[in-house]
Amino acid sequence: MTGRDCSIANALAVVGERWSLLVLREAMLGERRFDRFVRNTGASRDILAARLRTLVAAGVLRREQYSDHPPRHEYVLTESGRALQPVLMALMEWGERYATEGEAPTAWAHSCGEVFHPTTVCASCGAPAENDTLHLLRLGQVP
Amino acid sequence: MTGRDCSIANALAVVGERWSLLVLREAMLGERRFDRFVRNTGASRDILAARLRTLVAAGVLRREQYSDHPPRHEYVLTESGRALQPVLMALMEWGERYATEGEAPTAWAHSCGEVFHPTTVCASCGAPAENDTLHLLRLGQVP
Repeated sequence: MTGRDCSIANALAVVGERWSLLVLREAMLGERRFDRFVRNTGASRDILAARLRTLVAAGVLRREQYSDHPPRHEYVLTESGRALQPVLMALMEWGERYATEGEAPTAWAHSCGEVFHPTTVCASCGAPAENDTLHLLRLGQVP
Repeated sequence: MTGRDCSIANALAVVGERWSLLVLREAMLGERRFDRFVRNTGASRDILAARLRTLVAAGVLRREQYSDHPPRHEYVLTESGRALQPVLMALMEWGERYATEGEAPTAWAHSCGEVFHPTTVCASCGAPAENDTLHLLRLGQVP
């Protein structure tokens, strides 16, 4: 069965699984190696290997050999992988507000000096993107 | 096994599964009923019922009875559910750029008159949140 024709669904076909997004979090923190991904995400090795194959096939991560003897590989974010940062920021913000008790485990500072909280604005005019500022131009169809 | 203590992981414990986010997309489009969610997401009825139970238990959707005879329920976004909109916007934007061929199936206009594309800025100063504008204040630990 297929649902509505939709860019969100297309995105989720690539990253719509928690371990995939947690691997990308680690990659954005600078990790590149399988064992570190396993340790830092808590995923099983089998699941993580499958998710990495999907992410490499989708062009989100690039697999690079860093040792010949023995042959070893690491995983590097591509441009498309780095472009997922707003997704992770939005999840972090929501998770901090609605799914985390007490102080947020991770915190970032913005270059303005304040603790960083992301907010979503219109790329054209810079004004906030709230519900009443958006209207539908066209909607993907359900087959 | 548990990975890094992290608000992203906490968020994904609730919405880290593609059908959950697709149900929330439909709820944001105004749908409220099980059969419409099934049709518009393409999820199987069993999986969708399980995801709805998780989302209700997590307080993202509220289950309301709208008919007594027969008893029927619909699902309404809570404040926490509506607060997931930036996550869906970020996924839509990434999916449109990196996972969709041709024209985006769905498009929104912003009140400024332009086709809407979301961008992420610092909530304090309004400047873009790019990698070189952020530095880590603290990082959730790996047990």
